[in-house]
Amino acid sequence: MQEEQADARVVESQQGRVLDGLRVIEIGHFIAAPFGARVLADLGADLIKVEPLDGDPVRQWGEQPDGRSLWWSVHGRNKRCVTLDLKSAEGRALLLDLVEKSDALIENFRPGQLEKLGLGPDVLHARNPGLVIARVSGYGQNGPYRDRAAFGVIGEAMGGLRYLSNQPPGPDQPPPVRVGVSIGDSIAGLYAAFGIMAAVWQRDRAKGDGKARTLDVALTESMFSMMEGMLPEYGRLGKIKQPTGGGIATAAPTNAYPTADGEWVLIAGNSEPIFGRLATLIGMPDLPRDPRFAGNAARVANVVALDALIAGWTVRHDAAEAIELLKGADVPSSKIYTVADCATDPQYLERDMVREIEDPLLGPILHPGIVPYVPGDAASIRWTGPEIGAHNDEIYGELLGRSPEQLDALRAAGAI
Amino acid sequence: MQEEQADARVVESQQGRVLDGLRVIEIGHFIAAPFGARVLADLGADLIKVEPLDGDPVRQWGEQPDGRSLWWSVHGRNKRCVTLDLKSAEGRALLLDLVEKSDALIENFRPGQLEKLGLGPDVLHARNPGLVIARVSGYGQNGPYRDRAAFGVIGEAMGGLRYLSNQPPGPDQPPPVRVGVSIGDSIAGLYAAFGIMAAVWQRDRAKGDGKARTLDVALTESMFSMMEGMLPEYGRLGKIKQPTGGGIATAAPTNAYPTADGEWVLIAGNSEPIFGRLATLIGMPDLPRDPRFAGNAARVANVVALDALIAGWTVRHDAAEAIELLKGADVPSSKIYTVADCATDPQYLERDMVREIEDPLLGPILHPGIVPYVPGDAASIRWTGPEIGAHNDEIYGELLGRSPEQLDALRAAGAI
Repeated sequence: MQEEQADARVVESQQGRVLDGLRVIEIGHFIAAPFGARVLADLGADLIKVEPLDGDPVRQWGEQPDGRSLWWSVHGRNKRCVTLDLKSAEGRALLLDLVEKSDALIENFRPGQLEKLGLGPDVLHARNPGLVIARVSGYGQNGPYRDRAAFGVIGEAMGGLRYLSNQPPGPDQPPPVRVGVSIGDSIAGLYAAFGIMAAVWQRDRAKGDGKARTLDVALTESMFSMMEGMLPEYGRLGKIKQPTGGGIATAAPTNAYPTADGEWVLIAGNSEPIFGRLATLIGMPDLPRDPRFAGNAARVANVVALDALIAGWTVRHDAAEAIELLKGADVPSSKIYTVADCATDPQYLERDMVREIEDPLLGPILHPGIVPYVPGDAASIRWTGPEIGAHNDEIYGELLGRSPEQLDALRAAGAI
Repeated sequence: MQEEQADARVVESQQGRVLDGLRVIEIGHFIAAPFGARVLADLGADLIKVEPLDGDPVRQWGEQPDGRSLWWSVHGRNKRCVTLDLKSAEGRALLLDLVEKSDALIENFRPGQLEKLGLGPDVLHARNPGLVIARVSGYGQNGPYRDRAAFGVIGEAMGGLRYLSNQPPGPDQPPPVRVGVSIGDSIAGLYAAFGIMAAVWQRDRAKGDGKARTLDVALTESMFSMMEGMLPEYGRLGKIKQPTGGGIATAAPTNAYPTADGEWVLIAGNSEPIFGRLATLIGMPDLPRDPRFAGNAARVANVVALDALIAGWTVRHDAAEAIELLKGADVPSSKIYTVADCATDPQYLERDMVREIEDPLLGPILHPGIVPYVPGDAASIRWTGPEIGAHNDEIYGELLGRSPEQLDALRAAGAI
């Protein structure tokens, strides 16, 4: 099995791609809708990104050697990029022509904005009754907050994630941390991609209902949906789930511990046999018989003392050495990876999750691979994030049949 | 639009559900595969969860009034639960009969385990050549780590998320926090659900390629795929993305600030006009002209001092009061929601994201709603997490045609 799959990964064109034949329009900006669109594009969809004439602002985000965003190279990959002034009649006409030739549309305007432009779902469906529409927004398309400005950090705060991303409550508790990326945006985008596939499956299969659906994905709710037993435990028991820092409320020891070289190692040693081996490794073989640490419940109750003992051992070792020793004792552990660790990890490398790609604008560049990995499908980083309007001629000319003269006129009018 | 959608949500049976007609087998345990399966079940799939005779261990996780897990009520909802001893010949025969009648299968055994049981993809496809299989694992089905024990926390650590979930580097830096839920597991499950829909769409549409695909979803890679520009920025510039606590490396002020009543408020005040209004609100209208804080770059450079000034204002107000004042000044902000805030939020309530459901085993209980929300579709919390083997008779009797005598024999043999 292992060999067969490793081989399959090398074969570039054994079969097509899972989303060959699906055409999706993105009217997205920033992160949520564009991330969902990227996931679809990575699996082979013909993804047409519609941008205003000055482009998606994310083209200027993050580090920019020579004025070109490295993030954009990934965020925009596998998309065909066209410009369009949605406020102009000619621009809207082009969009509706695209709608006619597409399966789905994903957007993340503020609710009501598409309608204001005269491009609400009723208008889009008049042109293409089968179009699946995924609307991504901060709070959803209805309700008292629908008109509020949406920010990823606010969605994460309202979804309940941010409160839990902190050290345990106490006098010196620092502010809850942002997890370092716009996780709520990306999860909302992934839900939208999933919803689109669910809807086109039901529309397109032989016994399906043939309906076009309009999905309503809220960033807050996408986050909230991942909160496990938090809500029913509150409803029944009044329990307000609390942050627990690097640990877990119900098991010990499991935490991140500092090392001599200023790194962190994660150790998950909460089962009895593993804890026994860990205790021996750190030179305290009697710990499992210490009444403070005998059994998981006692360890949870005395977790601060226990974590201090373990940290007293980890700080005497560099991270690489600690990991080797822990591995030798069969204690589940990992260095807390920085991007440098990710980029050189043998597992990521063997599975092609770290790839050197040639970006025509930036030169050689590292890209993360495709998730989900579909063994046997053709490789799917087809191109990197293109320039603004890079595919105007191809899309408006070849796909929509506009003549060179018409394209010139559209350019002159500022419509594309 | 708003009214129409609010109405649609009330109508329970205007149309079917988006995944009506899709049958999926889950051979999952713990979080990742079962979460992906729940997402499919929530949209209407006929989700058959196959468990060992003593059930999925998650049935004993979290708070358990009367010995019944509240989390399980959500995690197992909308699934039909059958028991099956995969180590017995009769159990495997039942599973293959199920496979014959299903569209897809999702599993999260350790790689190689299904094969050891004699149920590898080749065996499953011999019985149903069209079966889509989603395999969720810690590190993927191949590569040097494939046989290692997988834990959610380790996947998050190796995906790069954990390093970033921390205060900025410094002598008193606490350990990086776990975000409080098994986010890596849930994201991997969501990717698997998305991959299944992509594959069945290509298989089932009129012009599709008809192929059955086997997806390979790794927890580490699911996490790593959300790391934005982190990898290309490292590859090109050697930049190792660093944790920034509650803030963002490139904009200020945006952070969580403490309040008089011990809560946190999130303030995103980094644009020039918003910063001006915020400065006036906190009684320091000259801040935007202070050279330390004039412009975003200066504010980022002096963010510690700036955050202290803002916190000096927030700690003089209770959270509710601070939020009202910030809203009055049109400064984007939110309380950092605990579950108690989520449960009473008017937006969640209006959009039915907090629902009181009757659980036959637990009585009235709060459940989070369905994501993605599909307006117009029939409501989709059809039932709560069932008991172990609750649907054995229904599935093995009605669907697979086993007689009552055969079922008795299977029970006596310990196969179900």
